[in-house]
Amino acid sequence: MPETHEARRGRLRAALADSGVDAVLVTGLANVRYLSGFSGSNGALLVTPDGSVLSTDFRYRTQVADEAPDLELLEARECDRALAARAASTGVGRLGFEAHHVTVEAHGDLASAAEGVELVPVGHPVEELRRVKDDGEIDALRAACAVGDRALAALLPTLRPGLTERQVARRLEALMLDDGAEALAFETIVAAGPNSAVPHHQPTDRPLAAGDLLKLDFGARVDGYHADMTRTVVLAPVADWQRELYDVVRSAQRAGRHALRPGAGLREVDEEARSVVGAAGHADRFGHGLGHGVGLEIHEAPFMGPTATGTLDAGSPVTVEPGVYLPGRGGVRIEDTLVVREGGPELLTTSTKELLVLG
Amino acid sequence: MPETHEARRGRLRAALADSGVDAVLVTGLANVRYLSGFSGSNGALLVTPDGSVLSTDFRYRTQVADEAPDLELLEARECDRALAARAASTGVGRLGFEAHHVTVEAHGDLASAAEGVELVPVGHPVEELRRVKDDGEIDALRAACAVGDRALAALLPTLRPGLTERQVARRLEALMLDDGAEALAFETIVAAGPNSAVPHHQPTDRPLAAGDLLKLDFGARVDGYHADMTRTVVLAPVADWQRELYDVVRSAQRAGRHALRPGAGLREVDEEARSVVGAAGHADRFGHGLGHGVGLEIHEAPFMGPTATGTLDAGSPVTVEPGVYLPGRGGVRIEDTLVVREGGPELLTTSTKELLVLG
Repeated sequence: MPETHEARRGRLRAALADSGVDAVLVTGLANVRYLSGFSGSNGALLVTPDGSVLSTDFRYRTQVADEAPDLELLEARECDRALAARAASTGVGRLGFEAHHVTVEAHGDLASAAEGVELVPVGHPVEELRRVKDDGEIDALRAACAVGDRALAALLPTLRPGLTERQVARRLEALMLDDGAEALAFETIVAAGPNSAVPHHQPTDRPLAAGDLLKLDFGARVDGYHADMTRTVVLAPVADWQRELYDVVRSAQRAGRHALRPGAGLREVDEEARSVVGAAGHADRFGHGLGHGVGLEIHEAPFMGPTATGTLDAGSPVTVEPGVYLPGRGGVRIEDTLVVREGGPELLTTSTKELLVLG
Repeated sequence: MPETHEARRGRLRAALADSGVDAVLVTGLANVRYLSGFSGSNGALLVTPDGSVLSTDFRYRTQVADEAPDLELLEARECDRALAARAASTGVGRLGFEAHHVTVEAHGDLASAAEGVELVPVGHPVEELRRVKDDGEIDALRAACAVGDRALAALLPTLRPGLTERQVARRLEALMLDDGAEALAFETIVAAGPNSAVPHHQPTDRPLAAGDLLKLDFGARVDGYHADMTRTVVLAPVADWQRELYDVVRSAQRAGRHALRPGAGLREVDEEARSVVGAAGHADRFGHGLGHGVGLEIHEAPFMGPTATGTLDAGSPVTVEPGVYLPGRGGVRIEDTLVVREGGPELLTTSTKELLVLG
């Protein structure tokens, strides 16, 4: 939809109207995709007041014609430099750039390519626009989350002691990919028994055993949008300490979800969930932030954590994912993807959060 | 193997002995893994003359103890800043950094965190070390390439008109993942018929048809090392123009492989293959470089192309992958992964390069 992308470029121009730049060079790949539709692995976009130029290399000649038919194409291997040179040759005096995407080395190359042009850092204007999603973006996320929900529903009845973490991960991934995921949103985490105490565990050949906590963190990508969900279940029999741990995390997760509303402070939402964990005596066992935005990247603004600043916006999809990890014993994390809405968040990951004891 | 990593850090210190820095901050993730063994998604390493400090966050506390037991750990979310501050507090006056990995924004943060310390760009010393692989690294690559060879051998007899590109990609990926790949090395390319003329095509729901060229570009990751192979086959009946195109690319690929030897110029090897394509009248239809190094990244130094500088080293694994793409009709690419050796390259991807006409 070229109109969608042109409208986004219009909003970027408006956001930069007072920044004193004549044009902006966009080099973050997710930002390039957001503003142009082009999804290749090498590209950059020059946004000027009266037009835009997309650059990519030979490999993507056909793809760019499909995805961004409305944009002038400048074919080059070093897209950023080619566009900087174009800016210089078309009278741009002050060229905005994304200082969080341009390396120190690339900055030197840009300066050489655009002699006489002043390079001006403009903050994170595209990421700021991307925080609030339009209906088409949320539809893609909803579809991606539904793929994950269906995959989990199909997986759970097949779990039994003896399967390895890797086998479970492969099964879950196959279910998503056979059901419309264009790719995995990230590397699947399957962590059983003591491994569930490792927040970002990579699946191993450890077999599932009776009495294990089993943590599953996974997601599908649909139309470029990344779903993210975690569920933790138990392979029977369940122990009292596992139930207690689960209840703490579930209560914390509920508190976090209920705190999601437009205008809520990112730090304050984190604190709503964190205080539940702290009251249960586990303050030092929840060492990561409460959640993050999802979209064209699996981790994007806004970020909710103890040191975050800023507030939530309506139409912003975020995860809520507290966890408590007891080294050597096990851990529980429960994570949903939700959209911040007036009147209460919209839940995109609808799998049950009741404690499931399997077998 | 902590000894392996300590030896690598020793070589880095030696490489930087004349650079005038007191320590170096390594922030490229593949470089951090190469020098420490730590494979998480957030980390940085401070290498000083008399020791090294690894930084990562809470999520990886257990993993880092497993993977880098010999290193002091500094737990922090903003690893680079935490290590810069550590450098400042321990008397480092000149701190080397990787200007191709540190963004302009991060550079400002480092300068604030390490007040009074001079930040000195040191080039790409770790990537330079990584060009030549040790036996353990090549063993991992060999295993990864073997997974790909076996997957292709199992896939080919199952191909028939009517299967979609996506189904073929899923089948190939499942074969690799069920056979020991820890992950895919990159997103699989399956391109049939006219789509084979798109160098980096994403698999679609287009069904394979009789008479299609079918291009398969795929690879497995094993122990962090990335295999890369492309084969192009035909679904019967084969047309004369397809045979001719295949022969050109096969001859070019052979010429490129035969040019691989220690000391050969990167540009010259590219030219050996490119001149074959040019002599057949397709010079403008081979728009990418001849090949690249593979290792902890799917694309890494050395790069062979028309503007490359430098030479090949013994013990360096590279791809050789010429392609010719005829828009609207079809394309052929043939790619191997090989190790540059005295006496001739060692072929890691052993699948046949005879033209296979299936069915």
